[in-house]
Amino acid sequence: MSSTDEIALREICTQIAGPNAAALAAARTRLDRLAKPPGSLGTLEPLIVRLAAMTGQIRPDFQHPIVLVAAGDHGVVAERISAYSQAATGQTILHFLRGGAAINALAANAGAQVVVVDAGVAAELPDHPRLRRAAAGRGSRNLLREPAMTRAQAAAAMLAGARIVGAEAEAGLDLLALGEIGVGNTTPAACLTSAFTGVAPELTTGRDTGMDDAGIERKRAVVAGALRRARVKPADPLGVLAELGGFEIAVLAGAAIAAAARRIPVVLDSYAVTSAAFVAVGLAPNLRHFLIAAHRSAEPGHGVALEHLGLDPLLALDLRLGEGCGAALALPIILGAARLMREMATPEHTGTG
Amino acid sequence: MSSTDEIALREICTQIAGPNAAALAAARTRLDRLAKPPGSLGTLEPLIVRLAAMTGQIRPDFQHPIVLVAAGDHGVVAERISAYSQAATGQTILHFLRGGAAINALAANAGAQVVVVDAGVAAELPDHPRLRRAAAGRGSRNLLREPAMTRAQAAAAMLAGARIVGAEAEAGLDLLALGEIGVGNTTPAACLTSAFTGVAPELTTGRDTGMDDAGIERKRAVVAGALRRARVKPADPLGVLAELGGFEIAVLAGAAIAAAARRIPVVLDSYAVTSAAFVAVGLAPNLRHFLIAAHRSAEPGHGVALEHLGLDPLLALDLRLGEGCGAALALPIILGAARLMREMATPEHTGTG
Repeated sequence: MSSTDEIALREICTQIAGPNAAALAAARTRLDRLAKPPGSLGTLEPLIVRLAAMTGQIRPDFQHPIVLVAAGDHGVVAERISAYSQAATGQTILHFLRGGAAINALAANAGAQVVVVDAGVAAELPDHPRLRRAAAGRGSRNLLREPAMTRAQAAAAMLAGARIVGAEAEAGLDLLALGEIGVGNTTPAACLTSAFTGVAPELTTGRDTGMDDAGIERKRAVVAGALRRARVKPADPLGVLAELGGFEIAVLAGAAIAAAARRIPVVLDSYAVTSAAFVAVGLAPNLRHFLIAAHRSAEPGHGVALEHLGLDPLLALDLRLGEGCGAALALPIILGAARLMREMATPEHTGTG
Repeated sequence: MSSTDEIALREICTQIAGPNAAALAAARTRLDRLAKPPGSLGTLEPLIVRLAAMTGQIRPDFQHPIVLVAAGDHGVVAERISAYSQAATGQTILHFLRGGAAINALAANAGAQVVVVDAGVAAELPDHPRLRRAAAGRGSRNLLREPAMTRAQAAAAMLAGARIVGAEAEAGLDLLALGEIGVGNTTPAACLTSAFTGVAPELTTGRDTGMDDAGIERKRAVVAGALRRARVKPADPLGVLAELGGFEIAVLAGAAIAAAARRIPVVLDSYAVTSAAFVAVGLAPNLRHFLIAAHRSAEPGHGVALEHLGLDPLLALDLRLGEGCGAALALPIILGAARLMREMATPEHTGTG
């Protein structure tokens, strides 16, 4: 039943190892010897230890962070679950390519490069040196009525995401932030979150960007209806993705797997990105150890998703933009945590007020 | 009754104007024209508008941020309100000067310079090119038993802080983050917070770094006793500072006033820094418009203080180190917000998913 793409994907998944126990222990020891009262760096301390466990380096020095923004359209917008039309997805990508989107400014602010991936946008996009093509289809189908994509498309999109990250890793990528753009994609995000966690659509479906009361009721009914139609099995994550996901979600799941296989930390941003993590962790449970949550958005299901993944977000700035903006804003905190390990002194213990 | 220092201080306070209403309105208009759904940048949006109102610039470009770390000792440590001895303050300053402290790494991470000020440390400190001298005394007196300092010392320390910032502003300073180091200084912070807000010591006094249950009971009794002894009047902020504050708190209050007088935004970090803001806002109510809260620490009184100042912190990373670490971690967010206004496109409205 498995396509060659699916076999290739599973092969990458087998390469994802667990935390580096020696580096983890050494980082913990060094952290306690730094010139500061124990625990006084708060949530940076578990982050520092995790970075060592991910990278195998006690003093990680991230030189080449990338924000990968995957874009896709969603047939389910036909059910009026978004305040925007699909055309907005393509328009936003043009802003990315011209350098005038929020993520361009915030990635530059963090010293990160932006890689934009057409994972499956409905619009025709012009060629551009910054645009990677990875579309396994031109927008997903309406997941309320039929599978969002075929299993083969889902595997192809995941593999395309994995290969883009593989190529970037060859060029030096050492810290991967994931972002997305896709009108309507909090609907597949809610479907995936409910499918993988068992939490009811009432708690995983939110207002997204500018939805009114009638809109959110409609959206909840769509999510509930899609779950009833598809009757997915969480034990088959690729099947769940094909039924209820989307192309950018598939690319992001593949990107995360390829990064973790190379022990590159993966920074999650929005609800749609976090829903991709369920697919990736389902296929490769060790992936969990390589995930860092950047930001908890105002979308209530996002908090549900992060909690089920056991992730504590660094930021809560009420962003609702996607694009990887929350991840780009969290990157300096992650880089700062790594720098503490590289540059702080380890003399006799010194207390502070 | 007023010394020449106090007169000079009040003169600076009169130079602090309110928000720039034209820049505020123009920033709001531009923000709504940016290529994003309205409000989708979350808490960055009010920050962006406030930065314009502070600086008078719609596209502020901060080129020279500084973390000013003021250090002082506190006679009240004789009441065993800290897990550390005063000697730790001086030792920590030596780490700053050698570049091995947390704030050195985090400031460098944010592209900011560190300025360390001896505001009144008990230990003799060696000369060092990075160390500014502004000590109006060698450690404050025990505020449970007598005023922490004289009114003349309080005014002199504030003015010294103001003059250091004035000199840095001449050299280009355009964004000021405030940090502190001083064993025991959450006790004066609690005293000042209770004095200016009227909130009971039970709610303003916390564990600081590593205090046990008996310690916190002792500390609460000290704060309550000091408030009973001093019978301060919030309408005389300099008097409150002299009775219940500390030298580094005085320097920080003066630094904030001098920055606001030049329309330079002031980034607050820890509980002790925030308590200095009460003194500064008491003397110059307009100062409030120039304050940005970087981080809410685990110290419960810090949240009380921020709420009374009407400030919503950007971060909550459970830091308990002081030094300006929270401010240094928030600087990239502030710089990123400014960059959004400089670099985002303003075309016809574009929505995102």
